[in-house]
Amino acid sequence: MSTPIDSETNQVIVTVLGLGAMGLPMASRLARQFTVHGFDIHENRRLLADAAGIETFASAAAAVSGAGIVLLSVRTGEQLNDVLFGVNGVAEALTPGSVVILTSTVGTEAIPAMAERLADLNIALVDAPLSGGPLRASDGDLLIIVGADPLALERARPVLECLASTLTIIGDKPGDGQALKTVNQLLCGVHIAAAAAAEALALADALGLDQVRTLEALEAGAAGSFMLSNRGPRILQAHEAAGAQVLSRLDIFVKDMGIVGRATRAAGLPSPLAAAAEQLYLLGRVQGLGAADDSAVIRVLSPSKRS
Amino acid sequence: MSTPIDSETNQVIVTVLGLGAMGLPMASRLARQFTVHGFDIHENRRLLADAAGIETFASAAAAVSGAGIVLLSVRTGEQLNDVLFGVNGVAEALTPGSVVILTSTVGTEAIPAMAERLADLNIALVDAPLSGGPLRASDGDLLIIVGADPLALERARPVLECLASTLTIIGDKPGDGQALKTVNQLLCGVHIAAAAAAEALALADALGLDQVRTLEALEAGAAGSFMLSNRGPRILQAHEAAGAQVLSRLDIFVKDMGIVGRATRAAGLPSPLAAAAEQLYLLGRVQGLGAADDSAVIRVLSPSKRS
Repeated sequence: MSTPIDSETNQVIVTVLGLGAMGLPMASRLARQFTVHGFDIHENRRLLADAAGIETFASAAAAVSGAGIVLLSVRTGEQLNDVLFGVNGVAEALTPGSVVILTSTVGTEAIPAMAERLADLNIALVDAPLSGGPLRASDGDLLIIVGADPLALERARPVLECLASTLTIIGDKPGDGQALKTVNQLLCGVHIAAAAAAEALALADALGLDQVRTLEALEAGAAGSFMLSNRGPRILQAHEAAGAQVLSRLDIFVKDMGIVGRATRAAGLPSPLAAAAEQLYLLGRVQGLGAADDSAVIRVLSPSKRS
Repeated sequence: MSTPIDSETNQVIVTVLGLGAMGLPMASRLARQFTVHGFDIHENRRLLADAAGIETFASAAAAVSGAGIVLLSVRTGEQLNDVLFGVNGVAEALTPGSVVILTSTVGTEAIPAMAERLADLNIALVDAPLSGGPLRASDGDLLIIVGADPLALERARPVLECLASTLTIIGDKPGDGQALKTVNQLLCGVHIAAAAAAEALALADALGLDQVRTLEALEAGAAGSFMLSNRGPRILQAHEAAGAQVLSRLDIFVKDMGIVGRATRAAGLPSPLAAAAEQLYLLGRVQGLGAADDSAVIRVLSPSKRS
């Protein structure tokens, strides 16, 4: 089966639903190469997209009309269900034969039923959660993890390759991408909390070590991790002052460690480290740090040095 | 002050106390470059050292006689105190003006008093805990973290440089090395447990992902860590079968996470991830895995696939 094309322009229309922090830069990136339509429930996001040269619509159903590929960039599993199957859901408005790419991290549970409902409408689902922030989305420099039927993947590939510098095909069915992303987030969440939450740099401080030199000494050795190098400097900033730049919100890890917790619980797997890390992010949100950078998790356990 | 030299040979004698899994290969390495004397309380270790061409003695006091540098390679803080200040302790037998190098990881608490007692005898203490196994010790490829007075460090440097490919000078007093090593072990212990103990690879398995492909996919991204790459393959081996090769004993992390726990408690720092990791290593020891490779910690939470 080939992807439906627009009869007027003879091109594939790519529709992006959800023009938020990730959806908008992805839509902008895709607009270099494709005819991109967009929708967001917030008018201000639609206006921003218009300004970026993306054609937006007053409803999601109008935005997907005629689209060959629909890319979903929502924040939660509830939003995902709403946008497809809710009161104003677009499932029935999708073009038969088109492909839906799910880029959000929502966990594995809902995916099989969703894939089946879409298949009944002759729509393929490509499960493609991603890593990397807005800047890397604009640059087509995301890491995208894919679980999809090989034929559906081939149809989605031009769009995925426009967005990603690394495509990891981990399995051949929707849900496999969410599964690997869940494992990935378990490690990321634990590594940030271990590196951040008083558990390494705050301990170094308490032991009278210089935190910057400690970070340098640890990075190169057996204690090293991507997150120690990436978040370490921001963690030290967050420990010094309350107003560090927000590159990745703490409450994203509240959501993702929640997904990890559901997955380990469903599998009957003990996971004390992931559970401890989840509690730290929850504590951070309760303490008003949900919209702060995730490196602020250090302040949950060790007060800001300047406060 | 210069390091005492042997009047017969006109060379510095280096004495290694503790000829165990690390002490013996360090002594062998040093014997390429120095006159090395040695002692261990176990006769079989002394015989192995003799066979490796190291002159051993019937008592620790005899072994340190005339030594300009004494390198301590013991397992615990109790052994350290015994060897220096116990009934058969060598402190009084050390040559005034000599240097003691402490390579064991024993925590920070005892170091200031020990340094002071040695200073009263005109002996300098170089705090130099290390990372790397027996093979890297033989090859002079250790990572050594140093806290020491700069003058004492300069006198110990030829010995340290014979053993280490990386010397990290983190502070100018004994105890600073133990402090950084404690922070380092916190991260290593958490990373192994996170990567191992069902919390990533076991979850991947439970979610139906191929563990080998998952490991490859995770390593390169934000979830990556030295320990994921280093222990990952051994963790998968440990998950498959009970008899994987022992490269680093699980009970070393029982000891080291205990040191971390004492340090965080003394500082009044909450550390839920380190505490959870410590409990996993303790559970492993209780389940009879103390002498197994530390990667066996995955079996604490997820039964061996072949058992």
